Amino acid sequence: MSSGSEQAGVKPKSGAAAYLERSRAFVDACLEKALPPETAAPTTLHKAIRYSIFAGGKRLRPALAFAAAEAVGGSWDDAAPVGCAVEMIHTYSLIHDDLPAMDDDDLRRGRPTCHKVFGDAIAILSGDGLLTYAFEVLATCRRTEAIPGVIKAVATGSGTVGMVGGQVLDLEGEGKPATEASVAAIHRWKTAALITASCEAGALSGGASLKEAELLRNYGQKIGLAFQIVDDILDLTASPETLGKTPGKDLQAQKATYPAVMGIERAKLEAQRLMDAAKAELQALGARAQHLEDLALFVVERKS
Amino acid sequence: MSSGSEQAGVKPKSGAAAYLERSRAFVDACLEKALPPETAAPTTLHKAIRYSIFAGGKRLRPALAFAAAEAVGGSWDDAAPVGCAVEMIHTYSLIHDDLPAMDDDDLRRGRPTCHKVFGDAIAILSGDGLLTYAFEVLATCRRTEAIPGVIKAVATGSGTVGMVGGQVLDLEGEGKPATEASVAAIHRWKTAALITASCEAGALSGGASLKEAELLRNYGQKIGLAFQIVDDILDLTASPETLGKTPGKDLQAQKATYPAVMGIERAKLEAQRLMDAAKAELQALGARAQHLEDLALFVVERKS
Repeated sequence: MSSGSEQAGVKPKSGAAAYLERSRAFVDACLEKALPPETAAPTTLHKAIRYSIFAGGKRLRPALAFAAAEAVGGSWDDAAPVGCAVEMIHTYSLIHDDLPAMDDDDLRRGRPTCHKVFGDAIAILSGDGLLTYAFEVLATCRRTEAIPGVIKAVATGSGTVGMVGGQVLDLEGEGKPATEASVAAIHRWKTAALITASCEAGALSGGASLKEAELLRNYGQKIGLAFQIVDDILDLTASPETLGKTPGKDLQAQKATYPAVMGIERAKLEAQRLMDAAKAELQALGARAQHLEDLALFVVERKS
Repeated sequence: MSSGSEQAGVKPKSGAAAYLERSRAFVDACLEKALPPETAAPTTLHKAIRYSIFAGGKRLRPALAFAAAEAVGGSWDDAAPVGCAVEMIHTYSLIHDDLPAMDDDDLRRGRPTCHKVFGDAIAILSGDGLLTYAFEVLATCRRTEAIPGVIKAVATGSGTVGMVGGQVLDLEGEGKPATEASVAAIHRWKTAALITASCEAGALSGGASLKEAELLRNYGQKIGLAFQIVDDILDLTASPETLGKTPGKDLQAQKATYPAVMGIERAKLEAQRLMDAAKAELQALGARAQHLEDLALFVVERKS
């Protein structure tokens, strides 16, 4: 999504842009195969699923899964199921979060949200279907001995003490006074947990040792939190065209955000600090972790 | 749920009642361990999940999973993750189906539905959480080599070409003219697919050969369809107290049902025919399949 046109001299950024572009093409081809065609019954449901997942997202989570697999000596093919699964889960969470009963959003990735096009019932069921496919595809990991650990990591990151729990905290926190601690708690679950799972499960699918999986989990927690801080900042500063969704929604809904509790400048510094800490986790992995390092920089410097 | 007081002379029925009672106690203990306590954050979410899953259902799907495992020489412990998972999936589907955007039901198992008590947002997220736990628990099957097949069976039965797809067909069919073929298509997906998966995945978790898994799948498809036919009949004939939900809803919503397209008497005969065909699938399995035979009879003769 980032055009990468500004500051062409910064090497790691262009590295991440190229890596994201390649991994997006790869995961899109895998998703194309993993999901039924629009012509398969029930056609409305499969159209809604494809409308939502092929909507031009950055595919950051799959890229992290692939880079994590590479960082421990594995391949993109090893991590393909994880890449598909985390993107399916991310997409299902957006569909459900956008529903009138939840955040009630009309615009997502520059287009009308799933329920605006297909209605609430189909949107709920599309999300349910995507979540189910996510685990179906995880069970096809080539390293079969890694499957239980991969599923545990993804389920933990996306369940009631992860992403789903974070959405509850977020809804319950609306309109209430927020503190740095309460904002961090929401963001760790709502956003960082699935990003963490992408890194950990990607590594496990690539044959990671327990020690390596732990390093990747730590890396993921830090860039996951940095990602959400930058998201909060962009919601205040970016244009709707760049953002692809309605900006200023957080402020309007009195959402708990980092800029709201510490101001934009301190929030930027916190994102930088987390990026540096994430990179430090990668040292033991050596040169194979270069793409993860590039992606950490991308997370903090992105403009959309 | 069935008191088993009438027709005490019918041996297989009392066999099924006792089996269901034992397996319900077993799966409830497993679910108790697999799900976070109500005191764990986010407490509202975990309360809503426990409110919905510990609501006194028959636990037919877990019982089928256990009986299928036994029929191939496995144990209840082997099939415990499958029993938990199919009940979690069944419960999540009820929570989502009852939402105002879907079937809009106020009463379930004799109590206010999840969204009536906790609100629509928490109901959506409770369903999402339960579906996620279902796959997390499947990844803990003792026979690790069976996990990919178990997950494939459960995901297929509960996904867009199974239970979720069936709910779409059901919603799209409301108010339209139904035929025997269209009703059968809806019921095969909406209800029979998850019952089929309970049998097939239960068998696989108990060490079934491919041939045995196929027999159990065939058995499941037949009793799954019979189960829904009996459900349609009970919706027309049972009292709300016996049923634990609002009867006559199908008629009111102009739902496609078996009694609507073939009348109650022919629908009863069709359920009987399917039960006999299901039992025939079990012959090659011998005496170990006795509980499955009892459960087939229970499915057709139950009063609630």
